[in-house]
Amino acid sequence: MSLPFSVDSTDGLARCGSLITKHGKIDTPTFMPVGTAATVKAMMPSSIKETGAQIILGNTYHLMLRPGASRIRDLGGLHQFMGWQGPILTDSGGYQVMSLAQLRKLDDDGVTFRSHIDGSYHRLTPEKSIEIQLELGSNIVMAFDECTPFPISEEDAEKSMLLSMRWAERSKQSFEDQAGYGLFGIVQGSVFESLRVQSAKALLEIGFDGYAVGGLAVGEGHEKMMGVLKMTLPVLPADKPRYLMGVGKPRDLVAAVQNGIDMFDCVLPTRSGRTGQAFTKRGEVNLRNARHSNDPRPLDADCSCPACTQFSRAYLHHLVKSGEILGAMLLTWHNLKYYQDLMRGLREAIKNGLLGEFASLFNQEQKSGDIAPIK
Amino acid sequence: MSLPFSVDSTDGLARCGSLITKHGKIDTPTFMPVGTAATVKAMMPSSIKETGAQIILGNTYHLMLRPGASRIRDLGGLHQFMGWQGPILTDSGGYQVMSLAQLRKLDDDGVTFRSHIDGSYHRLTPEKSIEIQLELGSNIVMAFDECTPFPISEEDAEKSMLLSMRWAERSKQSFEDQAGYGLFGIVQGSVFESLRVQSAKALLEIGFDGYAVGGLAVGEGHEKMMGVLKMTLPVLPADKPRYLMGVGKPRDLVAAVQNGIDMFDCVLPTRSGRTGQAFTKRGEVNLRNARHSNDPRPLDADCSCPACTQFSRAYLHHLVKSGEILGAMLLTWHNLKYYQDLMRGLREAIKNGLLGEFASLFNQEQKSGDIAPIK
Repeated sequence: MSLPFSVDSTDGLARCGSLITKHGKIDTPTFMPVGTAATVKAMMPSSIKETGAQIILGNTYHLMLRPGASRIRDLGGLHQFMGWQGPILTDSGGYQVMSLAQLRKLDDDGVTFRSHIDGSYHRLTPEKSIEIQLELGSNIVMAFDECTPFPISEEDAEKSMLLSMRWAERSKQSFEDQAGYGLFGIVQGSVFESLRVQSAKALLEIGFDGYAVGGLAVGEGHEKMMGVLKMTLPVLPADKPRYLMGVGKPRDLVAAVQNGIDMFDCVLPTRSGRTGQAFTKRGEVNLRNARHSNDPRPLDADCSCPACTQFSRAYLHHLVKSGEILGAMLLTWHNLKYYQDLMRGLREAIKNGLLGEFASLFNQEQKSGDIAPIK
Repeated sequence: MSLPFSVDSTDGLARCGSLITKHGKIDTPTFMPVGTAATVKAMMPSSIKETGAQIILGNTYHLMLRPGASRIRDLGGLHQFMGWQGPILTDSGGYQVMSLAQLRKLDDDGVTFRSHIDGSYHRLTPEKSIEIQLELGSNIVMAFDECTPFPISEEDAEKSMLLSMRWAERSKQSFEDQAGYGLFGIVQGSVFESLRVQSAKALLEIGFDGYAVGGLAVGEGHEKMMGVLKMTLPVLPADKPRYLMGVGKPRDLVAAVQNGIDMFDCVLPTRSGRTGQAFTKRGEVNLRNARHSNDPRPLDADCSCPACTQFSRAYLHHLVKSGEILGAMLLTWHNLKYYQDLMRGLREAIKNGLLGEFASLFNQEQKSGDIAPIK
């Protein structure tokens, strides 16, 4: 076992556990901030840690193009390069490459694509993706897969899923076992139950340190997403971590945890932070809105992040309107803190057998709406 | 005396002193980071303080347009608004308005101009500028003046200087004395000795808490700038602080301190930080340059800032090339730390009577060039 995982308590289908990596322990359910280009945008590594994040995600596609995986390896690996000493999960590059649309060509062996930076040609195969992720020194390596768009016909979804399963097998063959590092497989099959079950079983056959549910958050909506979890998760082994890729909004996280998901990643908190959008207990708040321009109150009185404890809504509004970097810094920090506080809340609720109550209160508060503007 | 100032030690013309404001003591010579729009770009207030900065500068022109001075007053003043508890100096808006060129119209009473943000019309007079600065709650208010371009004829320079002196008188009339707050006059007269002396004497006649040298760093060059200081400073009283506005490069600071300047402000460290340019003991370093792409060494091994202690040149290069916000954050921090360390070095040298030696070593090191690239 390369990546020890234990489920320490359960509440319904939800689980609280620990995943042990070479770079530290991760309490699950966990949310991984996205560090696309070897930086969680607008955050110092020390600040990421202060939000409560225990693991971050790096993007193979971006890093292989710039600054290059072998360069990062020569500089001591991704942890050393970006000054993040905690665990790192890397995606396989598959998702980004597939979303290039016109710039890529897929065959059974892999995919050829052009860089969005300089137009140069590159090729990713399962073997190459794993090689790059090993060069980066990733703690959790993801199998190379094809992520299908939504909607898609069952026939195309099956063809793609079967390709991803062949690639999963080749990913496993290329991966080198080492204590504290692991490889996750990715269940595909769009919204079709038989395909999801078939995919999950195929991955179990190969054997992975964890299992991800891929191909979601592509426009299918909250209900369909939960539907896929309900059909997929029962097939996956209880003693391995389960990772819902690229998800999501706070309510997606709460519901997915209730269905038994242990890990998440998403650009929402960081990307929204750079555009003036904040997540709070009372729902989303757009700091760009003029209603905040004279408001001396904190964004969220219950939040302990710098944006909420040191500044007013009026100031945050001013920063966002002025396009100031500090606005992006503060709102990114706040959003990541909100996501981490939410995960901590979920973990504590599970431990105390109160997840249902937690989820009810969460949904109620989210719908209560932002505080009334100052007259 | 609204703003107590004491010269605690001297070395030649250079002085080490303390300026006491309502918001704290400033050790001089001091460098003030520029916080144009109520934020020192890409820096948290706590980080500004960590660099050693004791006072920052705010821009009246920018703040009156957005978010508006009365709004800031209603929100508790600029200190409260931007979360900076230390002293603040505000400029008068004159310099920014004058640099609008086509968008402004000057008369003896003041200047009418159009906002660069939304094209709306505004008017600044000495009375209005002082009123705004008082609304902001600035510790050090600057008299409203006209800043002339370079080169300029002696006739035009005289006309402009005499206007600035009339405005200085009106600024003084409008200022309201309060303990811990003060008003500075600004010497004008371009590079003409008789005008500078005449201007300085006119200001002395009016009486200010400190005296600034304005109209420099507009393209006249280092030697002419020092020439103006040599003709101007002897006229100014030894027991008042002297502020060289908008300056400058590290060598300008060292030479100006040797001539008896106590205070500086400049956008160079912050603006350069956002474009990948770093100031170091061994001169300027352009992190955008490919020579750094594989370099595991710190930007400056002697610097204690986060950029230098936690990251490699290769990483900083990567951030700059990728246009990442963290690059701006780290290099701004580094540059401000470099400037503050330089000022601290100057203060200690003066106290120990070793300023000449300090300046020689400084110039020698600056010329030594950056470390050789890794092969």
